[in-house]
Amino acid sequence: MLDGTHADADHPHIRVDDLGLLRGDGVFETVLVVDGQPRELGPHLDRLARSAAMLNLPAPDLAAWERVSRQVIDSWTDSGEFALKLVYTRGPEFGDGSTTAFALGMAIGPRTFTHREAGVAALTLDRGFDPSIVERAPWLLLGAKTLSYALNMAALRYAEAHGADEAIFIASDGSVLEGPTATIVLVEGDTMRTTPPTIGILPGTTQAALFRAAERSGWTTKTEPIHRDELENAEGLFLVSSVRKITRVHTLDGVELPDSVKLHTELSALYESEYP
Amino acid sequence: MLDGTHADADHPHIRVDDLGLLRGDGVFETVLVVDGQPRELGPHLDRLARSAAMLNLPAPDLAAWERVSRQVIDSWTDSGEFALKLVYTRGPEFGDGSTTAFALGMAIGPRTFTHREAGVAALTLDRGFDPSIVERAPWLLLGAKTLSYALNMAALRYAEAHGADEAIFIASDGSVLEGPTATIVLVEGDTMRTTPPTIGILPGTTQAALFRAAERSGWTTKTEPIHRDELENAEGLFLVSSVRKITRVHTLDGVELPDSVKLHTELSALYESEYP
Repeated sequence: MLDGTHADADHPHIRVDDLGLLRGDGVFETVLVVDGQPRELGPHLDRLARSAAMLNLPAPDLAAWERVSRQVIDSWTDSGEFALKLVYTRGPEFGDGSTTAFALGMAIGPRTFTHREAGVAALTLDRGFDPSIVERAPWLLLGAKTLSYALNMAALRYAEAHGADEAIFIASDGSVLEGPTATIVLVEGDTMRTTPPTIGILPGTTQAALFRAAERSGWTTKTEPIHRDELENAEGLFLVSSVRKITRVHTLDGVELPDSVKLHTELSALYESEYP
Repeated sequence: MLDGTHADADHPHIRVDDLGLLRGDGVFETVLVVDGQPRELGPHLDRLARSAAMLNLPAPDLAAWERVSRQVIDSWTDSGEFALKLVYTRGPEFGDGSTTAFALGMAIGPRTFTHREAGVAALTLDRGFDPSIVERAPWLLLGAKTLSYALNMAALRYAEAHGADEAIFIASDGSVLEGPTATIVLVEGDTMRTTPPTIGILPGTTQAALFRAAERSGWTTKTEPIHRDELENAEGLFLVSSVRKITRVHTLDGVELPDSVKLHTELSALYESEYP
């Protein structure tokens, strides 16, 4: 818990009237921890604060979040990687008005490791909004990382029920948005591209780390609108996030994409070079 | 809890890794209970089952839900009205695979009673999707009553921050959708109209009860698309839901609507006539 209380995740700690539960009214972050080191903790905390502001939650005490993150990391006894989840909700509806805030260590499932190695098949799915709405309609919370992820989970289930592993959301004007839990990165020649947060998506922490490393190595990076039709013709299409790192898309809407195994190795090495 | 365990809402009963909390991955219903009688419990349970199916949750055991509802109602000691919340989530991510299911009694705040009496000011807010998406994109879960209500709560906060009490969502083609937690009912002459669930909204249980009573009393009822422009000119515009009952909209986007106090009395009497 953010107050420093250490708790066992096998026991209940959340009230039934917590608005995070009853209304999905809260925000979260998922941080990758490798060998006791959290990756991009600063950018994750910045994004937590940005999401919280979009939901009119009290500004998070980032020093306290850093402390509780360190506490969970220090208590994690298994070796290797795990996911550090930061959860911040509006708190119980009938409580004393205080928010709910905790950090949680979670094991990474074998499926994620398989996908990192073997790549994934993805389906493009219509996300149903036009990017022009984003600025006009802040109540839609587009670009906030909220606990209201039922739609994202449904999209992943839909993809899996239709022979794919992952989904890529497309806006109603054909713009590429993001995956349900990942940022899109496209490679053509010596250029890496991703889509801009202004179209209603999350700014990617792992994508930012990758681009940082890429720029240092002489790549050109672009953050600009990408049209759906460009996905099929790219030399490499990748889903990027903290826990999945750089995951290659080998099949899109049932069609095999150009072989990007070497590119995947190259991008992965770039990304890992950020964490010597 | 659905298994019959009686629990105190002041103590925690939910695990931090419950997917209802971490992902808003679950469904709910809110049932009005008046003098120990739940209103429209059958239709609420049917809708719970429909929402669960849209989220690929196991079909709820409706007999067990009825039992647990009765249990909460029988334990409620305060007199008058209260809200019975039914919550059904995918359960803990690292649990034994079982879902989380509970019924919860909740007091109705004074604000709701004030709004029932005095009416509300509402803002129309763009919901950002076109109704044609609904059938094509089941992963958007439009029309499912999920725990992912952050957007609905943000819309209400936006309305309150801009001098109103309530919001009415409008689709990108100008179709009237619903309120964040209510169905829209429009009155013109002897006709009551509401918007069809096929455009991506919840079928209203209270609206259905009102229409039943209205039809018995000789009203014409229509479930059909309504355009935003029709709202301003209606004799009566109402927000209808279990807990708010029939609430009159007296002001829309800052403009005072025709006086519908008498109409409100008439509709309220019709609705109450369903529960003799």
